[in-house]
This record gives sequence, C-alpha cells and structure tokens, in this order.
Amino acid sequence: MVLDAWVAAIKRTDDLFHSLTDEQLLQEVAPGRNRGVYLLGHLAAVHDRMLPLLGFGNLLYPELSSIFLDSPDKAADEIPSTSHLRSCWNEVNATLWDHMRTLTSAEWFQQHNAVKEEDFAKEPHRNRLNIILNRTNHLTTHLGQLIFLKPRETNKES
Amino acid sequence: MVLDAWVAAIKRTDDLFHSLTDEQLLQEVAPGRNRGVYLLGHLAAVHDRMLPLLGFGNLLYPELSSIFLDSPDKAADEIPSTSHLRSCWNEVNATLWDHMRTLTSAEWFQQHNAVKEEDFAKEPHRNRLNIILNRTNHLTTHLGQLIFLKPRETNKES
Repeated sequence: MVLDAWVAAIKRTDDLFHSLTDEQLLQEVAPGRNRGVYLLGHLAAVHDRMLPLLGFGNLLYPELSSIFLDSPDKAADEIPSTSHLRSCWNEVNATLWDHMRTLTSAEWFQQHNAVKEEDFAKEPHRNRLNIILNRTNHLTTHLGQLIFLKPRETNKES
Repeated sequence: MVLDAWVAAIKRTDDLFHSLTDEQLLQEVAPGRNRGVYLLGHLAAVHDRMLPLLGFGNLLYPELSSIFLDSPDKAADEIPSTSHLRSCWNEVNATLWDHMRTLTSAEWFQQHNAVKEEDFAKEPHRNRLNIILNRTNHLTTHLGQLIFLKPRETNKES
C-alpha cells in the first residue's frame, strides 16, 4: 500500500510535469515563491538522495545537491537546463523503482542507512519503508504547489 | 508508521492554522485559487467523511459537504465562520484519533465501509489503513498550498 501510494504520487507528478511546458516551469508557483523548475530539480535531488539512503547505490546527480537542496531558488547564477532536469527526475525515479520492486518485506523493514544499529534497536520505525512514506508526503506537498502552474480552468485540484 | 505520518501531517497543519490569523485565512493561497478558509472547511469535511468510512460513526458536520466538497470556493453565498470551521477541524481530528488509537492491527487491515465483501476478497488493499495513507497525501497536498498564506520570510517550505 505504501509503495502504491508512492507510485500514484510519482504518476500524478509525472503527468503534471508532462503537461507543463518548459516556459510554464520557469514561472513561480505563486508570487515570490519557488519556480517550477526549482521544484523539479529539488524533487530530483531529494529522490536521488534516497538511493544511498535505501542502500541502492550512489547518487546519480551529486551536482544537484548544492543548487536544489542547500540553496533556495534564484540563489545560483546558473541552473541546469529544464530538459536535463526532466531527464534527471525520470532517471532517478526509474532507478529507485528498479530497486524498490525487488525488495522483500523483510528488507523493507530493515533500517535505512542513516540509522545506527544501536538506535534502530530502539527505533524500529526508522526503516526503509518509512523513508518511502515520508518522501511521498514531501512529494505531495510540492505537488500541491506545482499544480498552480496549470491555468485555473483546466485544474480541479487547486 | 502510517499513523505516525498522519499524526505528523495533522500536527504540521494544526501549527500552520494556529499561526494564521482569520484575516490571513480569508486570502487566496495564490491568485485566483482557493482561499485558506475554503481549504480549512474542505479538509474538515474530508476528514469528517472518514468517520463513517472507517466505521467510527456518523458525520459530525454533514452541513459542510455541500459547501466544501460538492462546490468550489466562492460558490456559496455564505460560509460558516472561520472560528466555527477551526473548531470543526479540531473536533473531527480529535474524534478520528480517539477511534484510531484503539484499533488493533487486524482491524486496520479490515475493509473500509465503501468496499463490498466480494470486492475486498480480490482487493485486500482497500482497507482502513489505506484510507489513512491516502488522506495523509491529500492533506499534505493542500498543506503545501496553505503554506503560501505565510509571509515569505518566515517560511522555509515554500
């Protein structure tokens, strides 16, 4: 169920990104707020971090962190192209899913890589599955904002 | 973990609603979008519906449905006062939690009340716990929007 919710949130976000032009993504989601392209890079960077956290391998795009995790929007002089960020987003999620779909139940309930063995004994909820839950909520929080890039009349979720 | 994620999302939303004045809630979250007060009523109404869906009892505020579920913002001539909606929101979530915290694991994996027995046999994920998962994602989607009612400088999540 947790994985279904993840897949559903990724699908909704994918559909939204597909429906938005590069130009629309360059707009702020609301006045003075993050641009769509920043949130695209931010989500790609956050999901990329899930790879080492879940024990699935190294970051695919370590260069995204400083721009999209450590700095707010408009702080960087230059950011990667929107088309590159779109492909980072797709690649990171596809790689995650390749690993996610092979894990057993027992593996989902193992600790994630930011927890020490002794802490996990006391805090068994700090497992891989919980990362998925939390990242799904992170994603839907930003999805609610990205929806505002769609013109009002075609948008029932605003 | 699913309940923890629910509680965390409720807490974040509560904290946000507390920090917003009634006047701020009367603003649109973004130009031409829903007002904060509409989303407050909408979330209260959606969570109220969870009571019968989860077998916890009748709706507490059936009068919210037509305004906040069946109609878009600004369609109703008059809506309940913001202070009343704040108390609906609190009351509904408190009532839900009173029931939620007493359910056993087995009860969480029982079907919810919108599923027929024969469908549940084929679709066991249509259980109570899945309702919590889905409503948490619904909540965080709108939470991401409500955050925009806070002035930019005090806001790290926009």
